[in-house]
Amino acid sequence: MIKAGIVGGTGYTGVELLRLLAQHPKVEISAITSRKEAGMPVSQMFPSLRGAVDLPFSDPAQANLKACDVVFFATPNGIAMEQARELVEAGVRVIDLAADFRIKDIATWEKWYAMTHAWPEGVAQAVYGLPEVNREQIKQAKLIANPGCYPTAVQLGFMPLVEAGLVDVSHLIADTKSGVSGAGRKAEVGILHAEASDNFKAYGVPGHRHLPEISQGLQGMAGKPVGLTFVPHLTPMIRGIHATLYARLTKPAEDLQALYEKRYASEPFVDVMPAGSHPETRSVRASNTCRIAIHRPQGGDTVVILSVIDNLVKGAAGQAVHNMNLMFGFAETEGIAGLPVLP
Amino acid sequence: MIKAGIVGGTGYTGVELLRLLAQHPKVEISAITSRKEAGMPVSQMFPSLRGAVDLPFSDPAQANLKACDVVFFATPNGIAMEQARELVEAGVRVIDLAADFRIKDIATWEKWYAMTHAWPEGVAQAVYGLPEVNREQIKQAKLIANPGCYPTAVQLGFMPLVEAGLVDVSHLIADTKSGVSGAGRKAEVGILHAEASDNFKAYGVPGHRHLPEISQGLQGMAGKPVGLTFVPHLTPMIRGIHATLYARLTKPAEDLQALYEKRYASEPFVDVMPAGSHPETRSVRASNTCRIAIHRPQGGDTVVILSVIDNLVKGAAGQAVHNMNLMFGFAETEGIAGLPVLP
Amino acid sequence: MIKAGIVGGTGYTGVELLRLLAQHPKVEISAITSRKEAGMPVSQMFPSLRGAVDLPFSDPAQANLKACDVVFFATPNGIAMEQARELVEAGVRVIDLAADFRIKDIATWEKWYAMTHAWPEGVAQAVYGLPEVNREQIKQAKLIANPGCYPTAVQLGFMPLVEAGLVDVSHLIADTKSGVSGAGRKAEVGILHAEASDNFKAYGVPGHRHLPEISQGLQGMAGKPVGLTFVPHLTPMIRGIHATLYARLTKPAEDLQALYEKRYASEPFVDVMPAGSHPETRSVRASNTCRIAIHRPQGGDTVVILSVIDNLVKGAAGQAVHNMNLMFGFAETEGIAGLPVLP
Amino acid sequence: MIKAGIVGGTGYTGVELLRLLAQHPKVEISAITSRKEAGMPVSQMFPSLRGAVDLPFSDPAQANLKACDVVFFATPNGIAMEQARELVEAGVRVIDLAADFRIKDIATWEKWYAMTHAWPEGVAQAVYGLPEVNREQIKQAKLIANPGCYPTAVQLGFMPLVEAGLVDVSHLIADTKSGVSGAGRKAEVGILHAEASDNFKAYGVPGHRHLPEISQGLQGMAGKPVGLTFVPHLTPMIRGIHATLYARLTKPAEDLQALYEKRYASEPFVDVMPAGSHPETRSVRASNTCRIAIHRPQGGDTVVILSVIDNLVKGAAGQAVHNMNLMFGFAETEGIAGLPVLP
Repeated sequence: MIKAGIVGGTGYTGVELLRLLAQHPKVEISAITSRKEAGMPVSQMFPSLRGAVDLPFSDPAQANLKACDVVFFATPNGIAMEQARELVEAGVRVIDLAADFRIKDIATWEKWYAMTHAWPEGVAQAVYGLPEVNREQIKQAKLIANPGCYPTAVQLGFMPLVEAGLVDVSHLIADTKSGVSGAGRKAEVGILHAEASDNFKAYGVPGHRHLPEISQGLQGMAGKPVGLTFVPHLTPMIRGIHATLYARLTKPAEDLQALYEKRYASEPFVDVMPAGSHPETRSVRASNTCRIAIHRPQGGDTVVILSVIDNLVKGAAGQAVHNMNLMFGFAETEGIAGLPVLP
Repeated sequence: MIKAGIVGGTGYTGVELLRLLAQHPKVEISAITSRKEAGMPVSQMFPSLRGAVDLPFSDPAQANLKACDVVFFATPNGIAMEQARELVEAGVRVIDLAADFRIKDIATWEKWYAMTHAWPEGVAQAVYGLPEVNREQIKQAKLIANPGCYPTAVQLGFMPLVEAGLVDVSHLIADTKSGVSGAGRKAEVGILHAEASDNFKAYGVPGHRHLPEISQGLQGMAGKPVGLTFVPHLTPMIRGIHATLYARLTKPAEDLQALYEKRYASEPFVDVMPAGSHPETRSVRASNTCRIAIHRPQGGDTVVILSVIDNLVKGAAGQAVHNMNLMFGFAETEGIAGLPVLP
Repeated sequence: MIKAGIVGGTGYTGVELLRLLAQHPKVEISAITSRKEAGMPVSQMFPSLRGAVDLPFSDPAQANLKACDVVFFATPNGIAMEQARELVEAGVRVIDLAADFRIKDIATWEKWYAMTHAWPEGVAQAVYGLPEVNREQIKQAKLIANPGCYPTAVQLGFMPLVEAGLVDVSHLIADTKSGVSGAGRKAEVGILHAEASDNFKAYGVPGHRHLPEISQGLQGMAGKPVGLTFVPHLTPMIRGIHATLYARLTKPAEDLQALYEKRYASEPFVDVMPAGSHPETRSVRASNTCRIAIHRPQGGDTVVILSVIDNLVKGAAGQAVHNMNLMFGFAETEGIAGLPVLP
Repeated sequence: MIKAGIVGGTGYTGVELLRLLAQHPKVEISAITSRKEAGMPVSQMFPSLRGAVDLPFSDPAQANLKACDVVFFATPNGIAMEQARELVEAGVRVIDLAADFRIKDIATWEKWYAMTHAWPEGVAQAVYGLPEVNREQIKQAKLIANPGCYPTAVQLGFMPLVEAGLVDVSHLIADTKSGVSGAGRKAEVGILHAEASDNFKAYGVPGHRHLPEISQGLQGMAGKPVGLTFVPHLTPMIRGIHATLYARLTKPAEDLQALYEKRYASEPFVDVMPAGSHPETRSVRASNTCRIAIHRPQGGDTVVILSVIDNLVKGAAGQAVHNMNLMFGFAETEGIAGLPVLP
């Protein structure tokens, strides 16, 4: 039984983390901080947790986070880089669900996030928490940069192709669609039900912060620079990301289905669907699974990969718990083996 | 470890039962029958179950259901009354999620369901599986009539008031709203997304089959005939029932909040919310909990009760597993303690 | 061709008014004010109006509203009572879509709206703009209190019964359901898509501001005090209100269908559906129609009335235009005869 | 005033056509046929049309369609090719909203639609009814092949680029998303609300019937063969198509914004949005407008075009009425100038 703390538990990532940790057999939630809501019982804000989480939100200053074994930052960007250092130096494992430690190149990070980075050394030592790529490093890590939601779906979708060097990595396309919870639990007009429901739109086409994160990951797999066109869209659903990926083959056709099945054969949370499949986001709703299908329409040289995740689980809280499980030597699926909720 | 069979696993009740049983530590799923889909792997129809349920649908004639400890009927009305007898007589516990054994008065049943009942003796011996009412009988039962979704929400909402004899039971009103999954996984125009989405309507106002079931239950609590106006509505969501209940007090006001809290103090699946609350359906999504709030607007003599459940869990599959747990002496919450999924 | 001004055009009522007025053959939109958005083209905020509304939002101080023939206030409560007087005194017709002039009893208004009323004389001279009740007074009015959305659906639903003195008006029940646009275009967490979608809840059960407005109207019809239990709910759709109304007959049954058909025979915007109908909100989407059906379940003494409107049209902007048409002697249906959009 | 007939008015295309024609000042609806629903008043199936359409559905055999000036086929594929000939030969103008006359190459049509074509001569004489391409031919046409919904959005999006010869047409990508009404008003499990809501998926990736239609159109613009990867998706909304289009520039960059604005300068139903825009499907809901935006992310050589339409209006019924207006010399926008409904 380890003690876990959560900094900033009032967003969707926070409440999902609470749902998962409250049911995790090896974890005791010690503290959930929120400056603004200090004193309010967590279950008052989230009645779904009544009877399961009895803690109130506590003031960050008073929560004794150093007594935790692990602390999750479910905060806006820019918070963890200020506060994680002290914890890491005190021997607490830290998992940041925001973007503070994801981009290795500080200048790139500062350009896209429009902030000066407060702890570049943290970035250097942080491990990018995509278990399918960095499993062994994660086990040893003290500080985890938990991947973004789009980056998880896109990287897992492209990985086998890119690692195998089969496609033109200078012109990759990721056309991605996200449910509205991906925009966070923030009072903004654009994500009101009456605005976002019965509607579909692209956003951030000129540039989205997940672009450099994905590019960095793909570059690592390819061993050379990549060119990516990344177009995110908002779709009227609560949870789920669907990535539709396009790449052009540069070598004679192989058995791509077999390639993917082999690459992910031992991965507990990646499911390569049978040839010809169209994975639906609801088939992973509330679960930590990524489902992938591979297509070559009309047998041409354009490969189309379909990759779906639940943005709040595999794209955030579930992957964070997966990382925690690896760091503490628990079974990888402990606490995150729950089946998808369908319908 | 007991062996469970499911007859008719292709509807929403069936897939929800599969989700719960596949994760239940004391149950092994032995067979799932579907005449129409025999031979198809369950996980092909429901990819959410890939890796968790490896069985194919089997032909009812060939499934050896008598070898099961318990068989669930997740079939249309009229099937269980034909097939359950043989199983019950063979010593198999049977839980019918349809309506065949819910109404004790055969003539009433035949009028509302427009069929001749094939096994009236089954009705006589069946126990109505609402654990909050019939816990002890359920433990001994061989045949369970699992309650309908609306009847669960409405009866739990009215029960403390009616048992205490505080209201005029001759003019009760239940204004209920259901998500679309309550209509089943059937190819019908009226429940298409393009018809039922961004829309709200009442249906069955002249008469709905759940009316006699609810009336029978309330009558049992009141010890006398009751008059109920029951108006169901379809609301554009997938899961969830919200019952808004109206009753007029016939005695000087008491502390209704305390009455409810006391009545449900030891119930694991009924949560009486703090005074002044408005329970939301999503606060019970994918869970077996019923949340209830009590209001007396402007301090008048009209009591308003708000009662929410997930129609597929507490209103169907979850309650069925609760009944199974009681019948086999398992912990009541075994396999159905999963927290609600929010957002 | 008359000149119309709109004060506060950035909410849903405002944009709907713009949609209707931009297509009205007798109206020219002269000014739309918004202190916050002054200078921004209207069609930048609402691209649906590109090519149809070329005006920018203007600063209230600089918009020459006195040059208008009619000014609509699509503002939050409390604005029109401050600003309408000057316009009315200058001979401009004013239609307030907020609540400032709806409640005749100033003390009651001040209690429910928690403000001191700035212009009680305005309340005294204002005509409540429900054409089915006050058609003749509206034609002569200088100041219109445009009814609320719930009050429109509920009053039209109850009216024939209450006018005819057939029901116990001391215990009326209005169980109402509204789409999310009814909550306005405001940045609030509770009405985010990820909160309000796939969810259903009651709100304001202890007391809602539309209660005194409805009670006042019903009292006028009944000629005596009424007792109303009013329970509003939020349903996951954009537009639409569905009112389910309950009243107990106090006299031997009459032909209620005929009563309603007769009462509304010459009303262009009230459609009494055939006996046995269940009107859907989408059947009036984007139109100014109210559809009503009358039921007596099981032939008992409880009457159930179903009444649907589009909250932004018949419940706000469309009714305002109807009032304008009456005030200026245009055909009643001018500019608001558009057919519902289905699906 | 011309007489219009509709064959097959019970689907979404049919009811939308009825909505538009019932409000068209130059059209009288003479007959609506449906073999299955003959005798039922149209407004019983579609209460939104109560008071506006008084006709019943009539039996095709008895409807005197030859007395019409124009007949619309809103039928499944394969009907118009059997029935249109007689009408055309009798001098009736025919507009087919299905696919029977869209593909000029009969063998290609027969392969994708898996039928033998009954009237190849009809295909030869039919004009493809995309006014932005074939305006003059449409004016003279006797038989119109009304374009599909995806083909309309995709062709209008690509057209200026392809006509100008600026991009590599051998590797075009169209990632398209449709609301559920695009699947029709058919009783199918996959498009039930409980299946399609809160969900996102691709479908038809190996091949979709709109692919050859789009390719044929693009080829006409390019003057040479094109290679297109076309991936359609189902998104949980009722109406709307969002096409996200990708093409690689083969020539030094030009001012693409100006190119598009010039190409569509005189088109009443194509709106080129300001540079940097992200058109939303709701901005064209219930209207005949196509809105387009052009992007070059990070200034690279990949152009991203965003194109939105309402699939039932510009993608079906509205475009059909536009074609009718052209054929009969009415103003192009007559009856289809209604503003979008937002929210």
